[in-house]
Amino acid sequence: MINVIVAGFRGSMGQKTVELVKQTADFHLVGVYSPHVTELQPQKYGLADDVQVFNHLGTEMKSADVWIDFSTPTAVFENTKFALKSHIHPVVGTSGLNEAQLTELKALAKTQQTSGLIVPNFGISAVLLMKFAKEAATYFPDVEIIEMHHEDKLDAPSGTALSTAQAISEARKAPVQPEFKESVKGARGADYQGIRIHSVRLPGYVAHEQVLFGGAGEALTIRQDSFNRDSFMKGVAIAVRQVATLSELAVGLENVLN
Amino acid sequence: MINVIVAGFRGSMGQKTVELVKQTADFHLVGVYSPHVTELQPQKYGLADDVQVFNHLGTEMKSADVWIDFSTPTAVFENTKFALKSHIHPVVGTSGLNEAQLTELKALAKTQQTSGLIVPNFGISAVLLMKFAKEAATYFPDVEIIEMHHEDKLDAPSGTALSTAQAISEARKAPVQPEFKESVKGARGADYQGIRIHSVRLPGYVAHEQVLFGGAGEALTIRQDSFNRDSFMKGVAIAVRQVATLSELAVGLENVLN
Amino acid sequence: MINVIVAGFRGSMGQKTVELVKQTADFHLVGVYSPHVTELQPQKYGLADDVQVFNHLGTEMKSADVWIDFSTPTAVFENTKFALKSHIHPVVGTSGLNEAQLTELKALAKTQQTSGLIVPNFGISAVLLMKFAKEAATYFPDVEIIEMHHEDKLDAPSGTALSTAQAISEARKAPVQPEFKESVKGARGADYQGIRIHSVRLPGYVAHEQVLFGGAGEALTIRQDSFNRDSFMKGVAIAVRQVATLSELAVGLENVLN
Amino acid sequence: MINVIVAGFRGSMGQKTVELVKQTADFHLVGVYSPHVTELQPQKYGLADDVQVFNHLGTEMKSADVWIDFSTPTAVFENTKFALKSHIHPVVGTSGLNEAQLTELKALAKTQQTSGLIVPNFGISAVLLMKFAKEAATYFPDVEIIEMHHEDKLDAPSGTALSTAQAISEARKAPVQPEFKESVKGARGADYQGIRIHSVRLPGYVAHEQVLFGGAGEALTIRQDSFNRDSFMKGVAIAVRQVATLSELAVGLENVLN
Repeated sequence: MINVIVAGFRGSMGQKTVELVKQTADFHLVGVYSPHVTELQPQKYGLADDVQVFNHLGTEMKSADVWIDFSTPTAVFENTKFALKSHIHPVVGTSGLNEAQLTELKALAKTQQTSGLIVPNFGISAVLLMKFAKEAATYFPDVEIIEMHHEDKLDAPSGTALSTAQAISEARKAPVQPEFKESVKGARGADYQGIRIHSVRLPGYVAHEQVLFGGAGEALTIRQDSFNRDSFMKGVAIAVRQVATLSELAVGLENVLN
Repeated sequence: MINVIVAGFRGSMGQKTVELVKQTADFHLVGVYSPHVTELQPQKYGLADDVQVFNHLGTEMKSADVWIDFSTPTAVFENTKFALKSHIHPVVGTSGLNEAQLTELKALAKTQQTSGLIVPNFGISAVLLMKFAKEAATYFPDVEIIEMHHEDKLDAPSGTALSTAQAISEARKAPVQPEFKESVKGARGADYQGIRIHSVRLPGYVAHEQVLFGGAGEALTIRQDSFNRDSFMKGVAIAVRQVATLSELAVGLENVLN
Repeated sequence: MINVIVAGFRGSMGQKTVELVKQTADFHLVGVYSPHVTELQPQKYGLADDVQVFNHLGTEMKSADVWIDFSTPTAVFENTKFALKSHIHPVVGTSGLNEAQLTELKALAKTQQTSGLIVPNFGISAVLLMKFAKEAATYFPDVEIIEMHHEDKLDAPSGTALSTAQAISEARKAPVQPEFKESVKGARGADYQGIRIHSVRLPGYVAHEQVLFGGAGEALTIRQDSFNRDSFMKGVAIAVRQVATLSELAVGLENVLN
Repeated sequence: MINVIVAGFRGSMGQKTVELVKQTADFHLVGVYSPHVTELQPQKYGLADDVQVFNHLGTEMKSADVWIDFSTPTAVFENTKFALKSHIHPVVGTSGLNEAQLTELKALAKTQQTSGLIVPNFGISAVLLMKFAKEAATYFPDVEIIEMHHEDKLDAPSGTALSTAQAISEARKAPVQPEFKESVKGARGADYQGIRIHSVRLPGYVAHEQVLFGGAGEALTIRQDSFNRDSFMKGVAIAVRQVATLSELAVGLENVLN
């Protein structure tokens, strides 16, 4: 049985996570945390009588094994520090940690001998895509990325596409880039670490990524589709189960996929 | 029975066309033409005894119904003019006609009352893709194009992708373009007539085009793959059969697809 | 301005339709109908003061131009009969009409000189896929269908896939079926009207259909994805706008796509 | 420098392999073998003067490090035995070894302390697809396979699809199979080891395989396309380079991909 605290339990991801913990046989919800709540009766939030509702960090939290953090960019650093100091393994889904904070947290994890996991993307299909792409790139150095998102996504390329390109770029021997002449600028996409990325933005689409590899007489394509955030819960469950087996504060769900 | 002359019969497309005509029951090869040959015995080229081999334009050619031209950019204008003047319907697969020449040929077709067809692309799948894309754009104004070719193709976007964008652009009411911020330049592709085109270049690939339409809660995708030039012969056969039913010198295989 | 009544306004599709009508500038909601409601004040349902709430069919309904029916299989026949007799154009999204009822309604539409539209599928992408597939089949008689749905869909193949196969089968000259030996039964899919259909059932998937055409050296693929029912509203809007231009009681949204 | 003998050097794969060896800087062709040739001058076959042409197995072959076998199903067993006995590492692309022969060869490899590799499929994209599919199945037990081949392929499902299903089946915990009702028999495909396989046969297509994984709110798809046999040469090169590092007579190119 793994005892769990959910930080940021009132947000959209926090609520999904509370549901996940309640429904998983070997997970036990010991507490939920949000500095913004004033009511501390668990029943107010549809929680069992033995779940503690916290609105401040405190020593009563120490019974937990895993701290799942879906709080806010401003709170996540202090939360994670607190978890590590309390020997609770943090699983952090909140973004916003900068390089300096990450370095400090990694050092703290070491001195506290408490492992943890920072997870930029809980979607298993996206994480597997990245893992496979990295591996395939050794054999197929010629590769391009197409990512497709809903029309409201402003930034291009997507963060996942950039991470994928980075991973591929480190894994492969750089091939000779094919020459080209663009009759209309931008046709050949973005050049990131020598890898071409193409970003499609269309209504109806949600979040999709394709990695296309080509070689003499053959092609390999890896594609992932995220239709909704339900997909993240599978990743959260794996992280909670595996975080204690890590030897440090690691970054990326791939560290707990074998 | 349709009597056919093949101009440029020694080139790669010319040879395939000669084979096609020989193997099609209702086509009859009456002559082949190339100004570069000196031997005029048909047997030299594996042709039946009754096929005439020409190395200059002449009145003996007049028995033909259809003139299939796979000659050269420098010869195609004179060839087509000759065909029209001889009341032979030209089916032209050779590129290189400029706007002025096209205008002159169209006028000549009218005065000679001889229809013809200029065909930039004989691939039926590509022509159907363009036709369907144009039609779908009325209902789905949000659309992007991805074309994928072998790594030796220098120019980007491909000619077919540009033609497709043009056709879509004329058919649809222009939607509001989604805003975006490119963190790496080129991610959102080329903007041609308000339509985003993405060009992939990879070994192994041949010639492929996708048109992606998105709308609230749904998506429509049309894709065509050209694996080799065998695919063009189906288009040549349709053109030869239908060219006489046209009322002018038209451009595009879509004019003979109903 | 098109005056609209929505029958079955309390169901899921009915509610979406009411929202659509309210938000469309040239549509005017004059009434909603459900035999199951007892409260007749429009405010109870978030409707404007001038919208009439009906719980029985009656002559006050006659001011409407179009009757949108998302009622129930048992009510749809009487509803549509009533609409036609009242010279209101029916747009019927409810399933459950049998052949005899359809014949009777078609005859009634004729005598009443009131056109209407029965719509098995309001998804534009699905309807366009079917239309394009039918057209492509003339040129590419070799074709197979793959449909993919969520794992809870019991029946296979899907209704849309069967309709697509039917449409293709009528359009094409039947090709010679390739011979095969199945080492595991079912590999080559279902044979419907000489067309192979393959049904995939997986969690995560929603409703997707692909039609694959193959020819010498080339391939053409048409794919549609339905992610949610929002997509149907575009089809409802087109049907409402176009139904009065029909000359009979027609079946299929394709009748109002040009 | 790796010294290579090519057995079956006159066949289509044998010829490609000879070309490969000639063009690879660190491979050296020391001999070619076919029991059917009578002319033994290397020049007859476009080979360098120092290449020995053999028409029988003999001790002069012993200078080779690697024996590449693309001979015939009836010759492959004796050839491989000979290679192992001569301490030449066999890389076998010829099919036709039965279970008993394989067992005998494995034992021989052990006693001779000479490793080797039997390779059912040299296509890297196909082998990587299988490897990734196996890995993904741990996280996504819900999976189906679609394979697409040219219309002349008689057997369905393809051997690669069956191997993929086998590999997945061993890797995953078997999920509850979704129930279904086939209104047309075969719609849900072949059931092999609890995995549904769908076989498409169409002209234009060459050899393609897709593995579709579905989970709550997401999907992962791995696809490989083989356009021609050029793709196999990359696999042959890897096998030749790595075979000596193996500790046994292994089956499958995946043993030399890391």
